Amino acid sequence: MHTHTQRIENVRTQLMKADVDALIVPGSDPHLSEYLADHWKVRDWLSGFNGSAGTLVVTRDQAGLWTDSRYFLQAEAQLKGSGIQLFREGLPNVPDYIKWLSAQLAGSSKIALNGTCFSAGSIKEMVQKLEPKLITLETHHTLAEDIWDTRPALPPDLVTIHPENLTGMASPKKIGLVREQIKKAGATHYLVNALDEIAWVLNARGSDIPYNPVFHAFMIIGLQEAVLFIDPQKLTDKIQEYLSAQGVKIKPYDDIYHYLTGLSTNTIAYIDPARTNYALVLALHKKIVKKEGMSIITRLKGVKNEVEIQNLKHTMQLDGVAMVRFLIWLEQNVPEGKVTELSASKQLSSFRAENEGFTGESFATISAYEAHGAIVHYSATPQSDIPLRNKGVYLVDSGGQYLTGTTDITRTIALGTVREQAKTDYTLVLKGHIALASAIFPKGTRGVHLDILARQYLWEHGLNYGHGTGHGVGYFLNVHEGPQSIRPQDNGVELKAGMVTSNEPGLYRSDQYGIRIENLIVTKVLSENEFGTFLAFETITLCPIDTSLIKMELLSKKEKEWINQYHREVYSQLAPALDKEESEWLREKTEEI
Amino acid sequence: MHTHTQRIENVRTQLMKADVDALIVPGSDPHLSEYLADHWKVRDWLSGFNGSAGTLVVTRDQAGLWTDSRYFLQAEAQLKGSGIQLFREGLPNVPDYIKWLSAQLAGSSKIALNGTCFSAGSIKEMVQKLEPKLITLETHHTLAEDIWDTRPALPPDLVTIHPENLTGMASPKKIGLVREQIKKAGATHYLVNALDEIAWVLNARGSDIPYNPVFHAFMIIGLQEAVLFIDPQKLTDKIQEYLSAQGVKIKPYDDIYHYLTGLSTNTIAYIDPARTNYALVLALHKKIVKKEGMSIITRLKGVKNEVEIQNLKHTMQLDGVAMVRFLIWLEQNVPEGKVTELSASKQLSSFRAENEGFTGESFATISAYEAHGAIVHYSATPQSDIPLRNKGVYLVDSGGQYLTGTTDITRTIALGTVREQAKTDYTLVLKGHIALASAIFPKGTRGVHLDILARQYLWEHGLNYGHGTGHGVGYFLNVHEGPQSIRPQDNGVELKAGMVTSNEPGLYRSDQYGIRIENLIVTKVLSENEFGTFLAFETITLCPIDTSLIKMELLSKKEKEWINQYHREVYSQLAPALDKEESEWLREKTEEI
Repeated sequence: MHTHTQRIENVRTQLMKADVDALIVPGSDPHLSEYLADHWKVRDWLSGFNGSAGTLVVTRDQAGLWTDSRYFLQAEAQLKGSGIQLFREGLPNVPDYIKWLSAQLAGSSKIALNGTCFSAGSIKEMVQKLEPKLITLETHHTLAEDIWDTRPALPPDLVTIHPENLTGMASPKKIGLVREQIKKAGATHYLVNALDEIAWVLNARGSDIPYNPVFHAFMIIGLQEAVLFIDPQKLTDKIQEYLSAQGVKIKPYDDIYHYLTGLSTNTIAYIDPARTNYALVLALHKKIVKKEGMSIITRLKGVKNEVEIQNLKHTMQLDGVAMVRFLIWLEQNVPEGKVTELSASKQLSSFRAENEGFTGESFATISAYEAHGAIVHYSATPQSDIPLRNKGVYLVDSGGQYLTGTTDITRTIALGTVREQAKTDYTLVLKGHIALASAIFPKGTRGVHLDILARQYLWEHGLNYGHGTGHGVGYFLNVHEGPQSIRPQDNGVELKAGMVTSNEPGLYRSDQYGIRIENLIVTKVLSENEFGTFLAFETITLCPIDTSLIKMELLSKKEKEWINQYHREVYSQLAPALDKEESEWLREKTEEI
Repeated sequence: MHTHTQRIENVRTQLMKADVDALIVPGSDPHLSEYLADHWKVRDWLSGFNGSAGTLVVTRDQAGLWTDSRYFLQAEAQLKGSGIQLFREGLPNVPDYIKWLSAQLAGSSKIALNGTCFSAGSIKEMVQKLEPKLITLETHHTLAEDIWDTRPALPPDLVTIHPENLTGMASPKKIGLVREQIKKAGATHYLVNALDEIAWVLNARGSDIPYNPVFHAFMIIGLQEAVLFIDPQKLTDKIQEYLSAQGVKIKPYDDIYHYLTGLSTNTIAYIDPARTNYALVLALHKKIVKKEGMSIITRLKGVKNEVEIQNLKHTMQLDGVAMVRFLIWLEQNVPEGKVTELSASKQLSSFRAENEGFTGESFATISAYEAHGAIVHYSATPQSDIPLRNKGVYLVDSGGQYLTGTTDITRTIALGTVREQAKTDYTLVLKGHIALASAIFPKGTRGVHLDILARQYLWEHGLNYGHGTGHGVGYFLNVHEGPQSIRPQDNGVELKAGMVTSNEPGLYRSDQYGIRIENLIVTKVLSENEFGTFLAFETITLCPIDTSLIKMELLSKKEKEWINQYHREVYSQLAPALDKEESEWLREKTEEI
């Protein structure tokens, strides 16, 4: 029998033993992280599907996996022969898994899940949707985890300190700011569940999870006490001293649930239902008042301080040099026919690794040639890997984690002859990129207002892209972070001075190519007058934009000026760190248009 | 004693009799209308303030009136000597009246109000805000109404039929569409409280309220029955027959509350909490399930049918001719020094009155010279009226009600020499107007996404305007209607083909001048392809835009083309209805730039 069919069968035995009718296995951990340690890859083990997004549902006689368009092909391949049905989210007439369960199961059925791996908000929604059929959720089950005989342990890696000269603010001050906000919200305690939030507030980093320099822990910040729940083996004596010096108590990782159960009923708990796991909220005594709102730390860390911004700008020089060396390397090696998507990606990483403070990539590089570029979250595998040839476009979206900041950049370049349509598309994307980069807007403006700037020229031509235009970027933390975003969905967060956001419009033609141009931008105060305070962006990513793909007649004078100004900046910032040949190459690539 | 001081004192006696601590008197009626019949002007009678927005609060020892910046000057003048304190909403440190009451009143105080004149949603909010101090609302009081000895009766005007050849859809079909939506929402009955919604669904009109061709009534549409609550004297035999022919029962206006009280507890009531008065909702038995959502008729009538759009286009020709004649009249008469803001406004109205199907103005004309134009909702009074002189800018925002549609147009024109700054401002406003008018956008786009198009050039110069960019416009109904809008606040409503919206960016410099350029635009489907369905606007208002105020060097070639194309359309549509001299004038005003 197929390995995964067998595992699903074993889960069904579990269902019967536990007297429940279905099990939901999400692709998440108790911190609702984007990337997971192997320990939490329950769904992968059970189904064979290892994409970053997807939920497995097993009933007594059926099994289904729900994932989005990024993973349709991968899921299809990985689920083959397992008997697990693929549900392609977003396609017409594909129900979400709760609707599907609601239709499949008899009234008054019971669904099992592990409540630690779901947000409190998502459980609330599910309960509401299942109520009409009196289907109940049992959230204490670990039916799949229990039969995973080869389950890896949690990573034992040590936590390190991220010193104040790099973070710009000592941890006690950060905890103080958090407490101010707890008070302001009328609460006494704040549950910190997301790993990047704990890392930020403690000025500490780890390596438990790929790409995100964080460590497994929970934290409770009260007006008086602060408690960190973590495997003590992850802490050296030095770190233990560091933590206790700032009044942070340490308790074992799993003790959080017991600790919460014991909190006084006078506690007023501040909770972000989207970022706090359901089991944490359930552990609170029923009488405890819960104030719900956006995570306090998400809001605080979204605004970078001057030290962070200065360090990030320095990081952009390092990262830009690596990018330039990579682009030169491509130019020299693609014609010889030996470069593939994977080898290019590896080479880029090794150029980055030469930089001071580099600790790893900030996400899995998207190294995509021609048609692969149209797969928005393409990640080359040995099976999909193809050579880069002397024609068409190549898209590379990558970033680095440095002690001095996190980078995220996309360039689309011509490898030789390129069809006219690709040049038009590229120019329209570039025009949108420039319009957003040049935006001036009053305080109070949100990402939802600015999104159209990046899309307007594509829309004019009946074109569009299906992803957001910008996401917040952490500081030596997660490359995707809140609270702000630039996208058609309104999340109510205004763009504030100090926020770092990506600017990444694109255009994707199935089976042909993908185009994306991405820089990071910092929000700054520009002016103040009787009409209000006006803000603008400063582009901080440093790397030439391929001008050979531009249809010049589509650019306005102002747009050309923007490109020339940007390229002057790129050259003046990067040239000093390059050798003569490299800087000559850069001079050519940044020539006036 | 000052008349209004005396009336306030009399209300205080009422407070004591009723054993309550404060009274809130809003500027609204039981239908939450924008304009009120005199019968409902309780606040005006009590305070002396007659602006269209404002709430009076009377406590045992204080009285305050809350209004917004449109009415600061007017309220100041009208409240003088009354002892009523003016609270300027929107200014820093000005509390809203609930916050203020919460601070002034002792814990466990009681506040009286007439629940028929507040939306269910607003009462819910108030209750939540007053809860911490245990202050309660008593919503059944008519303390001010009871002592208004000279209160006018409700208007007795007759209801008329708006025939199918003008509306494009018979009333039974509209009721059928409403019932489909009631079913879809899982409800059995729908409370129709807003007057324009009743007028729309019954294809009937009235003249109970200034500017809005509606009549006082309530309606309940059930899956089986439809009941209209109206003073039977307002109905001729013909209308009574018309209504009963389509199965609409008629009951006296005030019977609605009793009728609701008697509804079966199996009823599932669909309610828009923002557009339904609190007393209606309160009248429903507690066991009745309430489904809340945006008003069904608001959504249906927002999308105009082909007949309505064709009629509206015809109306635009009529209205444009009146505007052209008015502009010519201004040019001829202003130099003689006898034109004032009021006389100009009167003259415009009389040009409109020459048109077929004209029934009145669609709102109070804003006829504002120079500094008055900076007062966004300026309405000239005999006291404020000033002559138009041979220099500076004049802003006129006006509209007509026609059996064939409702118009709303703003033009800003030079009356002679104009300072350079005004020309720059005008050109930036015009650029924004053009950008919005030319927008192409995918299905699903909402007004919040497009608003920036109209503001971007102003923002670039550190300028902005404090009002929305666009509102929905009714069809021979209210000039302001939902559901869509184009403004920074997101109301979640996508722009659909057939919607008629205003496009009216502006710029206001206190004590100097105001600029606004407004046309109506219809949303249309432009194209469909693999990237989605794309929509665009068609500008339907017909009247030249003053090109003498344009700084040509600030316009792009594309913008000039837009203006020339628009002016060609204006000329070709209006010239046939003008005499030789008028059409010669129009030819000059629409000359290529």
